[in-house]
Amino acid sequence: APECDGVLAASGSLKLRSPFQSDPTLRNDINAGKIAYTDVHLSQIEQQVRFGFFGAMDVAIIEVVGITEEGKLIPSMSVGPNNQWVKSAQKIILEVNTQQHAKLETMHDVFPDIGTPPNRRPLLLLNPDDRIGSHYIDCDLDKIVAVVFTDAPDRNSKFAEPDAISQRIAEQIIEFFEHEVKHGRLPENLLPLQSGVGNVANAVLAGLQHSRFENITGFTEVLQDGMLDLLLSGKMVSASATALSFSPDALQRFNDNIDFLRDKIILRPQEITNSPELIRRLGVIGMNAMIEADIYGNVNSTHIMGTRMMNGIGGSGDFARNAYYSFFVSPSVAKDGAISCIVPMVSHHDHTEHDVMFIVTEQGMADLRGKSPRQRARLIIDHCAHPDYREMLRDYYERA
Amino acid sequence: APECDGVLAASGSLKLRSPFQSDPTLRNDINAGKIAYTDVHLSQIEQQVRFGFFGAMDVAIIEVVGITEEGKLIPSMSVGPNNQWVKSAQKIILEVNTQQHAKLETMHDVFPDIGTPPNRRPLLLLNPDDRIGSHYIDCDLDKIVAVVFTDAPDRNSKFAEPDAISQRIAEQIIEFFEHEVKHGRLPENLLPLQSGVGNVANAVLAGLQHSRFENITGFTEVLQDGMLDLLLSGKMVSASATALSFSPDALQRFNDNIDFLRDKIILRPQEITNSPELIRRLGVIGMNAMIEADIYGNVNSTHIMGTRMMNGIGGSGDFARNAYYSFFVSPSVAKDGAISCIVPMVSHHDHTEHDVMFIVTEQGMADLRGKSPRQRARLIIDHCAHPDYREMLRDYYERA
Repeated sequence: APECDGVLAASGSLKLRSPFQSDPTLRNDINAGKIAYTDVHLSQIEQQVRFGFFGAMDVAIIEVVGITEEGKLIPSMSVGPNNQWVKSAQKIILEVNTQQHAKLETMHDVFPDIGTPPNRRPLLLLNPDDRIGSHYIDCDLDKIVAVVFTDAPDRNSKFAEPDAISQRIAEQIIEFFEHEVKHGRLPENLLPLQSGVGNVANAVLAGLQHSRFENITGFTEVLQDGMLDLLLSGKMVSASATALSFSPDALQRFNDNIDFLRDKIILRPQEITNSPELIRRLGVIGMNAMIEADIYGNVNSTHIMGTRMMNGIGGSGDFARNAYYSFFVSPSVAKDGAISCIVPMVSHHDHTEHDVMFIVTEQGMADLRGKSPRQRARLIIDHCAHPDYREMLRDYYERA
Repeated sequence: APECDGVLAASGSLKLRSPFQSDPTLRNDINAGKIAYTDVHLSQIEQQVRFGFFGAMDVAIIEVVGITEEGKLIPSMSVGPNNQWVKSAQKIILEVNTQQHAKLETMHDVFPDIGTPPNRRPLLLLNPDDRIGSHYIDCDLDKIVAVVFTDAPDRNSKFAEPDAISQRIAEQIIEFFEHEVKHGRLPENLLPLQSGVGNVANAVLAGLQHSRFENITGFTEVLQDGMLDLLLSGKMVSASATALSFSPDALQRFNDNIDFLRDKIILRPQEITNSPELIRRLGVIGMNAMIEADIYGNVNSTHIMGTRMMNGIGGSGDFARNAYYSFFVSPSVAKDGAISCIVPMVSHHDHTEHDVMFIVTEQGMADLRGKSPRQRARLIIDHCAHPDYREMLRDYYERA
C-alpha cells in the first residue's frame, strides 16, 4: 500500500526498501539517497527471503479481508508475497480491510510453498485458470501481535481514456495477433495475456474488446481496468493475478459483479503469477510499458534520465524473459514531443536486447526477432521513432 | 563446430548466424557487418525455431557417433539443439564422427519434446542426475540426404593452469560456500554447480578439488576439464550438460575412463540443461566469466569495448537469472593492468543489476544481494577493483 510506504518514509523509519515501490514520498527519499532501495524481480523476492538472503524478518503487516473461524487468513485484493511473509515473520500485524468486498473469499489460490532447493518440486499448474492451492493463508496465530481495522480504499487513480496514440499501439498488436493466428503460430484464443500497469498497456486490453478474439485468458501480475472489462464483457474467460488495482469506477464495477467474477479471477502469490516456469510453460504474451528503448533494442523501465528511479522493474523481467511474445510499448515521444522515447542508448538498462522481441509506438512496430544489432537499429528508427527524431537517430547510428 | 562456421563464413555462404559462435573468421565477418548475428539465450533458440520465429529450416547438419540398427541417432559429445533441428529440418546431413568414443552411447538423455504452448507440461526432472528421456534422437530417415564421415577432433585448446589470480577467485567462492553451509543456507554437498567456459571458471572447479565438499553435483551447459576432474576424483558424483568440451589431455582422460564416467555424465538437449524451470527448481549455483562489470553491478559478457562481439551470451543469462547464487568472475584488470575490468558503466549490457548477486575478482568479492545502487558501487570499488583504479572509480562515483 503506497500510504504505508509514504508514512514510513516521512517518519524516517525506513532504511531499505525492496522489491518495488510506487509512493512519491518514498521515491523522493530513495532518489535523495536517504533510503536504500533494492530493485528485485518480483518472482524472486519471496525466495530470497526464504533462502535467508535478507536475514530474519521481525514484523510483517498483512492486509486481509477477514479471518475464518479456523483461524485462516482471507487475503485481500493483493496477495503479493504475503503467504511467505506470514511464514518468515516473527510477529504479524493483521490489517483487516473492511472496505474490500467480503466475497473476495474463495477467489484466492494460495500455493502453500514452492520450497527450497534441493527439495523443490514442479509446479503442477497446466492452464492459466488451474487452482493448485488453498483459498486461505495458513498462519501461526501465536505470531499475531495486533489486529487493526481499516476502511481506507486503495489509492488508485483513474485511467486516462485510451487516446489516439494508445489506440494506434493497440491496433498494431492486435493486427500482429491476427497475422500470427492466420499463420498457425498462435491459437484462435491467443495465449494467456500479461499486461503491465499504466495507461498504454491498459489501452491494449481495451483494444481487444473490439477485436474478434474470444475465450481469451489472462495470466498477469496486476489486474487492472482493461482486463476487468474483458472479463465483464465475456471476451476473457479467466484471469490469474497477484493483485487487483482498479480505478474507483472499475472498483465499483468489480464489486457490483463480484458474483459473476468470483470463479473467473484467481488471485495467487506473486511467486506463482511471475514464475518463469509457469510463464514459459503457458506461453504468456507479455506486454509492458517502458520509459525508453534504444535503437539496439535495450529497454529502460525504471529510471528517468538514468538516475531518477520511478517504481522499479516489478515483474516486467519475469515476463519479458520468459514470454512467448515480449512486447514493450510507449508513445514515441514524451513531454509534447520534447523527448524521444527512442534513444541512441538507454540511460538505464532493465531489459537487454535478448529479452525484447517487439517495440511498439504509435508510429509502428519493430519485430526484432532474429535480427542483428544493425538490423534492429534500422527497424526501430524507421518504424518506431517519431519522424522528428529519425534523422538524428540515423546520424547517431551511422557514426556509431 | 567452429571449423564449420569458419568455412561457411569464408566462403560467403552465411547471411545470419544465431545463437552463439566461437569461430574467429566468423567473428571478424560479424564485426565487419558482413554477416548478421543474433544473440539469443541458449534456452530459447530451440523453442523460437519450433514456434516458427525463424521460418522454415531447410537443412540441418547433425553430428552423431553412430546410428542404431533401429535407425535412431546416437548423439555426439555435443547434443545442443540437435534433437529439435532433426525435427525442424526438411533435409538432414548426418556427420558420423568416428574420432569420438563409441561408448558415448547411453550417456545421453534426450527429452523428446517440451512442447509448444498451450500444450506444454511440467518437466519432471527433480534431481540433477534424473533421466527423463531417451538415449537416442528419433529421426525420420527419409529426411537424411547424406551421411558423411569425419575423424576430426574438436578444435579445443589447452586450459591455462590455474594461476594465482584464478586461485584467489576460487578460494573466495569456496570460503563463501563454507560460510553458507555453516549458516544452513546451503546443503553440505552444495547445490548443483554450473560453470561457464574459460580459464577462470575452470579454476574455480579446480579449487573445489582441494575443498572439503563431497558428493557435489553438476548441472551445467558445457562440461570442461575442471568438472571432469571433479568427477574422476569422486568429489562430484554426477554432472548434467549439453556438451563436453575438453582440452586434448582431458579428452584423453575422458576416453580412458569412459566406463567409470558413463553413468555419471548425462548429456541433454540445451533446452533442458538451460531451462529456467529446472535451474530455479534445482537451485543451481551459477558461475560465469565476464568481460567487465560496472560499479552498479551490470555485467558485459559479450562485447569488447562495447562494439566488438566475442562469442555471445550463451547460457549465462539462463543461469544468472534463475540461479540460487549467481557469480560473475574476472581478474580485476586485463592487458597487464592497462584495462580495469571494473568500470563506471559497462560498454554493453548483458546482465543487469537484477541478475548479478556476486562479483568476484582476485581483489575480493562483492555480495550485492539486497544492496542499493550506491551501496553496490562502494562494495564493488572497495572489494573488486584493482587498487590502481579505485581512486578513479571513486571519483566517478562521487561525481555521478
